[in-house]
Amino acid sequence: MDSDNLNGLFRPKSVAVVGASSQAGKIGHTVVDNLIKSKYEGKIYPINPKATEILGLKVYASVNDVPGPIDAAVITVPASMVKEAAEECGKKGVKGLIIISSGFSEVGEKALEEEIVAIAHSYGMRVLGPNIVGTLSNSDKLNASFAPFLPLPGKSSLVSQSGALLIAMDASTYTRRIGFDKLISIGNMSDVSFADVVEWLDTDENTSCISLYVEGLKDGRKFMDVSKKATKPIIALKSGTSEHGAAAAASHTGSLAGAAKVYGAAFHQAGVVEASDLDNLFDRALALSLQPPLKGENLLIITNGGGVGVLATDAAEKYGIPLRFAPPELQTELKKHMPSFGSAKNPVDITGMASTDWYVDSFKASIIHPWVDGVVILFCETASSDPMGIAQGIQKALLESGIKDKPVTVSYVGGERSETAMRWLSENGVPAYGAPDVAMNAMAALRQLFQMKEYSSETIVPAKNIDAKKAKQIIDAARANGRDVLTEVEAKSIFEAYGLPVTNHKLATSEEEAVQFANKIGYPIVMKIVSPDILHKSDAGGVKVNIKDADGIRESYKTIIENAKAYKADASIHGVLIQEMAPWGTEVIIGSVNDATFGPTVMFGLGGIFVEVLKDVTFRVAPISVGESRRMMNEIKGAPILAGVRGESPRDREKLAEILSLYSQMVYDLRNEISETDANPVLVYEEGTGLKVVDARIILKKI
Amino acid sequence: MDSDNLNGLFRPKSVAVVGASSQAGKIGHTVVDNLIKSKYEGKIYPINPKATEILGLKVYASVNDVPGPIDAAVITVPASMVKEAAEECGKKGVKGLIIISSGFSEVGEKALEEEIVAIAHSYGMRVLGPNIVGTLSNSDKLNASFAPFLPLPGKSSLVSQSGALLIAMDASTYTRRIGFDKLISIGNMSDVSFADVVEWLDTDENTSCISLYVEGLKDGRKFMDVSKKATKPIIALKSGTSEHGAAAAASHTGSLAGAAKVYGAAFHQAGVVEASDLDNLFDRALALSLQPPLKGENLLIITNGGGVGVLATDAAEKYGIPLRFAPPELQTELKKHMPSFGSAKNPVDITGMASTDWYVDSFKASIIHPWVDGVVILFCETASSDPMGIAQGIQKALLESGIKDKPVTVSYVGGERSETAMRWLSENGVPAYGAPDVAMNAMAALRQLFQMKEYSSETIVPAKNIDAKKAKQIIDAARANGRDVLTEVEAKSIFEAYGLPVTNHKLATSEEEAVQFANKIGYPIVMKIVSPDILHKSDAGGVKVNIKDADGIRESYKTIIENAKAYKADASIHGVLIQEMAPWGTEVIIGSVNDATFGPTVMFGLGGIFVEVLKDVTFRVAPISVGESRRMMNEIKGAPILAGVRGESPRDREKLAEILSLYSQMVYDLRNEISETDANPVLVYEEGTGLKVVDARIILKKI
Repeated sequence: MDSDNLNGLFRPKSVAVVGASSQAGKIGHTVVDNLIKSKYEGKIYPINPKATEILGLKVYASVNDVPGPIDAAVITVPASMVKEAAEECGKKGVKGLIIISSGFSEVGEKALEEEIVAIAHSYGMRVLGPNIVGTLSNSDKLNASFAPFLPLPGKSSLVSQSGALLIAMDASTYTRRIGFDKLISIGNMSDVSFADVVEWLDTDENTSCISLYVEGLKDGRKFMDVSKKATKPIIALKSGTSEHGAAAAASHTGSLAGAAKVYGAAFHQAGVVEASDLDNLFDRALALSLQPPLKGENLLIITNGGGVGVLATDAAEKYGIPLRFAPPELQTELKKHMPSFGSAKNPVDITGMASTDWYVDSFKASIIHPWVDGVVILFCETASSDPMGIAQGIQKALLESGIKDKPVTVSYVGGERSETAMRWLSENGVPAYGAPDVAMNAMAALRQLFQMKEYSSETIVPAKNIDAKKAKQIIDAARANGRDVLTEVEAKSIFEAYGLPVTNHKLATSEEEAVQFANKIGYPIVMKIVSPDILHKSDAGGVKVNIKDADGIRESYKTIIENAKAYKADASIHGVLIQEMAPWGTEVIIGSVNDATFGPTVMFGLGGIFVEVLKDVTFRVAPISVGESRRMMNEIKGAPILAGVRGESPRDREKLAEILSLYSQMVYDLRNEISETDANPVLVYEEGTGLKVVDARIILKKI
Repeated sequence: MDSDNLNGLFRPKSVAVVGASSQAGKIGHTVVDNLIKSKYEGKIYPINPKATEILGLKVYASVNDVPGPIDAAVITVPASMVKEAAEECGKKGVKGLIIISSGFSEVGEKALEEEIVAIAHSYGMRVLGPNIVGTLSNSDKLNASFAPFLPLPGKSSLVSQSGALLIAMDASTYTRRIGFDKLISIGNMSDVSFADVVEWLDTDENTSCISLYVEGLKDGRKFMDVSKKATKPIIALKSGTSEHGAAAAASHTGSLAGAAKVYGAAFHQAGVVEASDLDNLFDRALALSLQPPLKGENLLIITNGGGVGVLATDAAEKYGIPLRFAPPELQTELKKHMPSFGSAKNPVDITGMASTDWYVDSFKASIIHPWVDGVVILFCETASSDPMGIAQGIQKALLESGIKDKPVTVSYVGGERSETAMRWLSENGVPAYGAPDVAMNAMAALRQLFQMKEYSSETIVPAKNIDAKKAKQIIDAARANGRDVLTEVEAKSIFEAYGLPVTNHKLATSEEEAVQFANKIGYPIVMKIVSPDILHKSDAGGVKVNIKDADGIRESYKTIIENAKAYKADASIHGVLIQEMAPWGTEVIIGSVNDATFGPTVMFGLGGIFVEVLKDVTFRVAPISVGESRRMMNEIKGAPILAGVRGESPRDREKLAEILSLYSQMVYDLRNEISETDANPVLVYEEGTGLKVVDARIILKKI
């Protein structure tokens, strides 16, 4: 990362506005005006060959006329003039271009955009945009944008791929009372990408949480790498989740891989917390920017109302947070701070009679107790209670406790007095929300953050004994044959080269060979047509199972060849696969797609109705560790099947996890060659007895 | 409904406060003060034998001393004195008691509470409470409660089972800017129940939507009946959804029936819209109180920002609302009101350049178009746009269009200007929200309302040819035997009495009889032990399948009897069931519980892993129509299995729906006798070939 240049872009010490205008309403005017109004303390240099003064500032005809150095140049001139402006800025030694101008790749002018980036890079400049609102920073008093004002200050910074939404969210920080330090409009991402901004914000002293509104990433892998390494919480609202997967996918896996599922997997793997909607982005960003992660399972709820207590309990279940009774000695202590009809279990109900002291004392007793990992405080406004007193008491108790590794979130249900107290809390380090389920949702975000950070720190041990060369040879041979679909034999050979356990099989090209192979493999036998022109073998009458002797082999061989010719007269027939008939096992499917954003991505699910009816599958960006493979196995709805149900013994999940990880390495290694794969079905046997890939499909990338 | 007395309770023309106090801070003081401060225009009579004047009002020693009639008496005296107060009020001819006092069934004093209701009823009085905050009504300027003020006015009325939450929600109407006409605290529901209040609010001219916060209903059936008949939308937030089902259920169905599932079914059947959380209750109540139901599938989104358009599209998918492209002629019209780079499809993106005119004109064109069933309008605040102008333009256009059967919801993302415009919209009939997904969620509520009202108007045709007498005789015989678990033979006989297709079977009590019956039924045969003392027949070695001849029958008979005796020496053995071996079919499970709140409730699901692993089951309060049975079948995740997958032909869903409806009638008719039932498995065959109940279980209520 060119950190110095990005500092120049996002925290410039001097800003030129290329295309500055004296005409109100023009963007070139608005940006100068906004820089002045935000009380920017660096130098502002309006650039315009036709003006001498704008809003009291001296105007320069060109950046080259500016006496001092320029960190950032905000470009507001028409698209056709941006190249020239970039050239001049380069010559001047500008560090970064903030190109507000539109009319580039968003309207098909991709070449022009690329030319500008090339010019910028030739001078060592970075480019934010084009087609953006600009960039804003509270801590730098910088409004280098046409958004009308700096947002309400906050500890989180927001990067938005939608300019309109950025402007609207800017305004809404004041009504939501949830602020940001920086607002960065990222636009066409011709150069500076989400990954770049995340990496830079992670170094920014004024940002404690990185919030993203993402429509689509350009650099999926880099984004994941940078996010994994980031030391600050990252939260993303991904829009466009209703897109459907490509309808014309060549594999089963391809037809199941929607963009939302792959993004969800990538965020999970990279430790990025997701927001479910716009409100949720604000609410979770607030908690993530103020509170530490929830590191354990013991969350305590303190409430003055049974109703909100139950609503929070419902929400805990919805967000997968377990609630346990407080240990007896803590209950005894808590009982001192409530009337006799209160409850010290969990939720701790200090009742509608709760005074400020009871709130503070029960909170103090809880937060210092070693059993407690985090606290959610709920308050129902009553006429006699003191919302602000409680807020201040809790915040003070938290500070004085010296405890910094247990998160606290708060909900007040009430009117103006409660609003004021909540605002104070959020401004003083304790996130507060207007409904109990929202406080619980925020706590769930803090819990996810901890869990994901643990996961994403796992290292992936590359497998040994892999014959990558053989895999490549098989692919090259098929390509030399003009094919981009491998036969089952070829696919299984590649699987074998990666140590995946496929059924014992041989390709027979005559009846005699078939019998010979079958005798060697042992009966019963499965026979399948092998032809690159016949994808749906069963439909072509190209599959025979449970063949018990040599006569059966001969007969089936004839029938299969005849059927194949009848099905497709000009099909190229490689022969007939002679395969052991794998004993019954639990059917699973493993597969992969080569996602446009994230590249090779593996899928796992149970076979049969689980995949066909319930679409009960899960994705991960490859490669993945054995640990991640285990989580894939455990998160599908049918997971109990693998654990053993209805008297069945558990399946060999350890071997399955290893195989899944190996499979992910295979599709990752061959990412430049392979488009989609299926291992379907894979039969999984009892614990300790492994599994077998019964059918295999590999579709190559078209070249 | 005693509508006059309930009018007296909720819209009294005169109010006595029994236990009125001159001491500030006492509830008896607060209520008098609140009545005065709310500018109540009826008569206020403070009652206290020891005072002469409170807050400038003349005090009476007893209600009997009051010169005029009293509609409602607010009781604030201690629990021990309430009986006497009720007696006096009865003598005076008071219409209803609002008993704020606590210390009744909520602390175990159920008898005292019942005595008070008995006294009240003996004088024809109704009782609200006890253990409540009171009742408030904006349109009557009535604050007969200890909540500090009337809520922000609104068109919806709220009934709350939590007093603390009612007070907090009251205050929060001012910060949320979503108001209510009435707030009713329902407390212990000793007399007036949710059903009573719903029925009365449906007649209240100032209420257009009935909002409920429900912890638990006391009168499930009555609530359903009243809600079905109601002409106004009803929305309920049910708390306590994280409760688990009774762990010790005797049937499979019993172990799957959680309170949340049964409540969800009951609300669906009664046409009650559900709220997912507190914010959602406010948001949906606003839409339901202002807008008509969404009657069709053609919803149009109009937006000035791509970002919020995509977020709304995501939300539409989440809430199950289809989005279709606008028809060509409407697109042509819409194209007139946007720049060339806008989109007239759906979302209709009139771009960030959108003027007030474009908003109003595109909305006008849409709302009058016959294709359009409803419109969601999204707005992203920009510096140059006029949030209020757009709000007023849209509201005026809607009014002038004269269209009253197409709903409109709005979302503004922005700051104070947007807030002000949204507030104006909501106050002027068009619900507006701060995030696009919330506007879509509100539209989803309007859609559900329409769908549920259609469903709940279906009539249930009682089946003919039912031998209810026979069913009762079987139950009586078992009871006479001291049993509350029926044998499979008894259960199947009851099923047969209700026309349910059970396997052909006979109870043999000797080897000879067994052979005789088997010959008659035809081979292969299934044999099962019949003993009220052996519930788990397989575990006892009491089941033999696929018996092919008379010898097999003899041998199995011996083995089964021996096994049963070995399993439980003192088991009472009725004999051995000789049953046809039903051919393979799709396994489903039908069952029932007798829910504490709603009574007989049927369950349906697919068998095997669907029920055991995925718990993919659905409930309905019995009895249900054939149409409702079809919806049950279609809403389980495994529904495609019944429709036919993987080359299977469709199952006989029509017959299954009929049987499900019949089953529901059976458990409803026998609701005073039966606790739980299972028909598991039921095998469903190809279309037109019916189904068979293979095993049956009936558990009677303990008496």
